Amino acid sequence: MENPFTDEYFMKKALQEAEIAFEKGEIPVGAVIVIDNKIIARTHNLTELLNDVTAHAEMQAITSAANFIGGKYLKGCTLFVTLEPCQMCAGALYWSQISKIVFGARDEQRGFMSLGTQLHPKTEVKQGVLAEQASELMIKFFASRRK
Amino acid sequence: MENPFTDEYFMKKALQEAEIAFEKGEIPVGAVIVIDNKIIARTHNLTELLNDVTAHAEMQAITSAANFIGGKYLKGCTLFVTLEPCQMCAGALYWSQISKIVFGARDEQRGFMSLGTQLHPKTEVKQGVLAEQASELMIKFFASRRK
Repeated sequence: MENPFTDEYFMKKALQEAEIAFEKGEIPVGAVIVIDNKIIARTHNLTELLNDVTAHAEMQAITSAANFIGGKYLKGCTLFVTLEPCQMCAGALYWSQISKIVFGARDEQRGFMSLGTQLHPKTEVKQGVLAEQASELMIKFFASRRK
Repeated sequence: MENPFTDEYFMKKALQEAEIAFEKGEIPVGAVIVIDNKIIARTHNLTELLNDVTAHAEMQAITSAANFIGGKYLKGCTLFVTLEPCQMCAGALYWSQISKIVFGARDEQRGFMSLGTQLHPKTEVKQGVLAEQASELMIKFFASRRK
């Protein structure tokens, strides 16, 4: 039997979170954190609702996963996030020592890869998973705001 | 009459916060955010107590100040923090568009200046205010932990 727990499977869950953000009028970014194929955090961007620039999906996911684990390090965990993390989120992921980051669409302008934010040396990165769906949602969001 | 609201004045308040962190067994970093010579946020590192790598003094200060202001941008605000902000905190400060960052001691290894984290173009930076006091507190903390 095929393993149903593919990167696409978990990224779909992150995309569902991004859609919830979209419906709330938030920039549509969603995230989940997974350990042993189990989702331990599901979050979406809430910067507008909370009036707080730190309320990115990833930041909330890190706090939520650490709370679930009962420790602040996320060794053995994978973050799935629809958009490339920014400097702040990558900096938080550095401290968390998370094992793997899987993201969808690139953020050429404000993403950590372009800006050279340092991750923990043990953190693996994979990009481009369901990137098109994540991008489309972002484009749809910014188009709707220009109306 | 001399202006009592010098950078040293506010940094002393941040140092008081760092001392509270020290007493709680936290890495002793403290911060205050000031607008029009009024302190609107006072925070200290709580990563151990909250089991949360995102609970740096600066992150809490940003959230707290935004809450006070009722908006997420910290234009017109100055952050005073005893230690050079890390990538995460500098990344959050980027999003906040804060007007000024004043820090005490350098963090050569993990500070945003060494690691090249991008701030908002309108953010001014000043360093070295009461740096010795901030460093001494850090050294005392790590020495006490080695015992």
